[in-house]
Amino acid sequence: MIIVMKSRATEKQIENVIAWIESVGYKAHPSSGVERTIIGAVGDQRDKAALKYAENLPGVEKTMPILKPYKLASREFHEEDSVVRVGAAEIGGPEFVVMAGPCAIESEEQLLESAYVVKKGGGQILRGGAFKPRTSPYSFQGMEEEGLKVLESVSGKTGLPTVTEVVNPADVDLVESYADMLQIGARNVQNFALLKKVGHARKPVLLKRGMMTTIEELLMSAEYILSSGNPNVVLCERGIRTFETATRNTLDISAVPVLKNLTHLPVVIDPSHAAGNWKYVIPLSRAALAVGADGIIVEVHPEPEKAVSDGAQSLKPEKFYQLMDDVRALAKAMRG
Amino acid sequence: MIIVMKSRATEKQIENVIAWIESVGYKAHPSSGVERTIIGAVGDQRDKAALKYAENLPGVEKTMPILKPYKLASREFHEEDSVVRVGAAEIGGPEFVVMAGPCAIESEEQLLESAYVVKKGGGQILRGGAFKPRTSPYSFQGMEEEGLKVLESVSGKTGLPTVTEVVNPADVDLVESYADMLQIGARNVQNFALLKKVGHARKPVLLKRGMMTTIEELLMSAEYILSSGNPNVVLCERGIRTFETATRNTLDISAVPVLKNLTHLPVVIDPSHAAGNWKYVIPLSRAALAVGADGIIVEVHPEPEKAVSDGAQSLKPEKFYQLMDDVRALAKAMRG
Amino acid sequence: MIIVMKSRATEKQIENVIAWIESVGYKAHPSSGVERTIIGAVGDQRDKAALKYAENLPGVEKTMPILKPYKLASREFHEEDSVVRVGAAEIGGPEFVVMAGPCAIESEEQLLESAYVVKKGGGQILRGGAFKPRTSPYSFQGMEEEGLKVLESVSGKTGLPTVTEVVNPADVDLVESYADMLQIGARNVQNFALLKKVGHARKPVLLKRGMMTTIEELLMSAEYILSSGNPNVVLCERGIRTFETATRNTLDISAVPVLKNLTHLPVVIDPSHAAGNWKYVIPLSRAALAVGADGIIVEVHPEPEKAVSDGAQSLKPEKFYQLMDDVRALAKAMRG
Amino acid sequence: MIIVMKSRATEKQIENVIAWIESVGYKAHPSSGVERTIIGAVGDQRDKAALKYAENLPGVEKTMPILKPYKLASREFHEEDSVVRVGAAEIGGPEFVVMAGPCAIESEEQLLESAYVVKKGGGQILRGGAFKPRTSPYSFQGMEEEGLKVLESVSGKTGLPTVTEVVNPADVDLVESYADMLQIGARNVQNFALLKKVGHARKPVLLKRGMMTTIEELLMSAEYILSSGNPNVVLCERGIRTFETATRNTLDISAVPVLKNLTHLPVVIDPSHAAGNWKYVIPLSRAALAVGADGIIVEVHPEPEKAVSDGAQSLKPEKFYQLMDDVRALAKAMRG
Repeated sequence: MIIVMKSRATEKQIENVIAWIESVGYKAHPSSGVERTIIGAVGDQRDKAALKYAENLPGVEKTMPILKPYKLASREFHEEDSVVRVGAAEIGGPEFVVMAGPCAIESEEQLLESAYVVKKGGGQILRGGAFKPRTSPYSFQGMEEEGLKVLESVSGKTGLPTVTEVVNPADVDLVESYADMLQIGARNVQNFALLKKVGHARKPVLLKRGMMTTIEELLMSAEYILSSGNPNVVLCERGIRTFETATRNTLDISAVPVLKNLTHLPVVIDPSHAAGNWKYVIPLSRAALAVGADGIIVEVHPEPEKAVSDGAQSLKPEKFYQLMDDVRALAKAMRG
Repeated sequence: MIIVMKSRATEKQIENVIAWIESVGYKAHPSSGVERTIIGAVGDQRDKAALKYAENLPGVEKTMPILKPYKLASREFHEEDSVVRVGAAEIGGPEFVVMAGPCAIESEEQLLESAYVVKKGGGQILRGGAFKPRTSPYSFQGMEEEGLKVLESVSGKTGLPTVTEVVNPADVDLVESYADMLQIGARNVQNFALLKKVGHARKPVLLKRGMMTTIEELLMSAEYILSSGNPNVVLCERGIRTFETATRNTLDISAVPVLKNLTHLPVVIDPSHAAGNWKYVIPLSRAALAVGADGIIVEVHPEPEKAVSDGAQSLKPEKFYQLMDDVRALAKAMRG
Repeated sequence: MIIVMKSRATEKQIENVIAWIESVGYKAHPSSGVERTIIGAVGDQRDKAALKYAENLPGVEKTMPILKPYKLASREFHEEDSVVRVGAAEIGGPEFVVMAGPCAIESEEQLLESAYVVKKGGGQILRGGAFKPRTSPYSFQGMEEEGLKVLESVSGKTGLPTVTEVVNPADVDLVESYADMLQIGARNVQNFALLKKVGHARKPVLLKRGMMTTIEELLMSAEYILSSGNPNVVLCERGIRTFETATRNTLDISAVPVLKNLTHLPVVIDPSHAAGNWKYVIPLSRAALAVGADGIIVEVHPEPEKAVSDGAQSLKPEKFYQLMDDVRALAKAMRG
Repeated sequence: MIIVMKSRATEKQIENVIAWIESVGYKAHPSSGVERTIIGAVGDQRDKAALKYAENLPGVEKTMPILKPYKLASREFHEEDSVVRVGAAEIGGPEFVVMAGPCAIESEEQLLESAYVVKKGGGQILRGGAFKPRTSPYSFQGMEEEGLKVLESVSGKTGLPTVTEVVNPADVDLVESYADMLQIGARNVQNFALLKKVGHARKPVLLKRGMMTTIEELLMSAEYILSSGNPNVVLCERGIRTFETATRNTLDISAVPVLKNLTHLPVVIDPSHAAGNWKYVIPLSRAALAVGADGIIVEVHPEPEKAVSDGAQSLKPEKFYQLMDDVRALAKAMRG
């Protein structure tokens, strides 16, 4: 932490700040510039809250943190890329992994039909929601445990591993008993009770960035899972909320190279939720691959016009096959 | 729902859209303008998801919802202002209600000292967190049940009713047994499992707007609680996330008159979390009263420099007394 | 500027950074912490651009500026509140100044009628646009010089000093010859050619914050005017663009105490443009006064339903009188 | 325009709204739903301002525009993709066009060296700024006309056509006499005086989206240029301002497919300004191509560590060659 003194701070005020820093257990390193003095506070600063109070001491202009607040998630701590295995798929390895399926599980027929499309197209993981976080209490909330059974059954019939969302800490054990990967949705990215709980699960976690979560906060949420003991975390960029309304959210594609620089965890993109419109899913999937993401998660539905949720952003089977063709051609060019 | 056709939409496309609207259970009201045809879809539209798919039909340019998606929270449904009672305090009535106390409960001494300050200043409700949602897993996470016991004890000694946060659906019964009002924090505003659970509680709920939540989404979250059976919901504006970094969040003060127009529920402001700096809490509290809020919730700490969380935004006792003096003077002028 | 080295930076890399700092004319002050070394670069840092390049040197993690980039606008440079005179009105003094009038000047009758309302209500300055920056090329662009003549004539008849917008550097002399204060609109806040030009004008300037402008950038834009020689600048907060669409923009009311802390320049609020709806103008005007602003600028129109621009946010005369009554009562309470 | 009545609107209020719509020159088409009546206002609605006032009539809940406010820029008006020629380069045609060069022109040597790098790498257009809009009045403001002469000279020596920014309407003729394409910078995207002026120029215009400009507003700004008579407009997405600070701005990559859907104008991406860091420029350039942009504009500098502006985001020559190799490989894969 750096404490910047005001240009007119007195010697006495500087001394007081130094004394305060030492009283809370840090070492003070003052340094005088042309216009003002700055004071470094050296020690373990993972919990910035205490030092931030220094902003209220007389003569202090502002404080600036130096250390990153996350550790286990950082590339400094773990230099090599992490690879997360979900069934036979390896997220973070050389292959671009496609997770696909309907937004919500509606019936065994619907999910099975979707899964055959995913498999035929070359997707590696089946997605489908049994617990649906919906903005409206009057919208379909998911088939719950019945949906999980359908998911397990379809996985058995097609051989595709599965990812599905969990929204309540009390349901983590249940969901884990049916699915191969646990998804934390965007609205729960700072639901710390849930993060701790999946941190104790044995299955890998797909952690979605919230629509107003900074990259640093996303890494702090991953840190909750990692520090609870679960090392298998995949980060997912799915669009952030901005002033632009032409798309449902704004896909922050730069987050991919930024995250690749800061963390060893795999990073995937969800173009369906970012755009909110199937028309933009194929170009955004190509961009995800080109920018260096480890995979995508997309919504596919055999009959989007009858989907009970998010039909507008779901791809029809033929569009999904086209997406997979595009992705394969670009992946080949990227490998050189 | 209005469906706007493209200017070059064919008669056939218009007919198809009308047929589709009727196939999903709505009545179609087409109307031809100078440049294009629009088609109203009449019926119960609380679940917009299904009709939104129409955007994918050939010839359709866009869809526009007409109805508000919330009902119980709306002023149309309940014209009179709702008043929520917490102990002797009435939020939403003629008096401006001040809730105050430390961010986190640290000890009986700390909370009792804070409570006497709140009482002496004229505050009506004591706040204090026992379960703390913290961005970092390495930060203090609260005293948990031990903190709730302290809260109950201090309430007994001072006569102040209490509000405290609950973060896990599994803890709602526990928290309710100790506190007078349940707080849903900003990061849990769309934690629907938690909203449903407090919707079944008997104690009133203080629902904080998330930093990424629109006013409509906040009302939908209130609707979760109301539709689960709990009519006592107080809304709290506590700053939204924007590009500006001079304050921790941007206090959306206009949300107060907007909400007053849309809903019968009481609305309070949290200037401490919005600003993130005690220096701005007094002027923002005055603004809260002047704009028509029903109250404020502010952080007060006997020794902010030793607070384990959010010390930088906590008022010292003398500043809290000044705040209360300012608020009383303005409240008197407002009543005329 | 502080340069933060990576935790694994080598001695050689640290030496290279020090040598580079000195090669570009600064002094280097290295300081080693528990996890990493930081290096202060001491010298004149008003132009941060050069030092920022250090982020690309091997072993460097990030750079952090220390100095504020503005000087003449800062309270450190000029401790006392500045007062800007416009006719008999003093913005930044003890009195809360109300500037009011129609969005666009439409005719002498319309402006004169508006001006009598402003005067009768107790407003001190008449506003009215002759050059209108409009999003659409097909919207009314203002009466231009003809409108300026009307403005001068109405000012003469009512004794009210005037403020009006200028959008083209080539028009500054012209506008200055008719009006008492020059307004720079939100969309021109970083139109540096225009800022330099009004910096050479003799009339005071009302500088509106852009909807995308940080508080620091607003002060840098003021610095353009001040450093060109014009010391009479009034800052105006008029709403920033956020994800919330319930109001046209989000009034950043906290900007007032933040600016009062950073600068000596007067600060006013424009609730009409922030809200985009007359219904919210009165409560937001009360909040502006309560939070400590030096005044407001509001839209008043004798017949809003016939206004050629922004009728939806214009107050009718009786609403304006009510606003002035509210403001007077609160101002009295504030003075204590 | 659709006018939505409140659910409790009376017959009398509905009649009044219909009468008002007709009094301002539109036809009214009322339609009654289950819960409320909506009224279509049919006529020429390019200027929404007038009808928006209807929100203030008794019984009206809200108004919703139907028509797009731009016409010449729309794909409905001009179905085929437009191709804009700059020298031998064709933006909007089958080839991906790379514009590259230094942020600011510093000297003939610097620009010439940059231009040879651009040419050797295969770039088609040379960029370089002579008039620099800088946040700080104390930063280098550009070589102005001297820089334009350097630009013309280097263009002559290398055969590369040029693009350079113009910031003052008074300079348009001058800049046009030296450069092949006029750039409107992000901060001037709603500088309507400047837009009108370049709308009368004979050279093509590169119009950058502002950091807080919606896609619709960008198209309205293009409409200013088109409606003034200049049909050669290229749109440029260069990052929008959001809450995320890990990159300088957030590249809105979805804007490319959205714009391709709405307009016939070519669309390019500026990854240098979006990211603010050269490290992210190559992956973002690949993403630009993959998502379907018509080209990119990137900063290249022979010695970024000595650049007077934006060195941190400029590519060194070898990185630029790598970018061009990547882009060529992907372009080939995209063509199939």
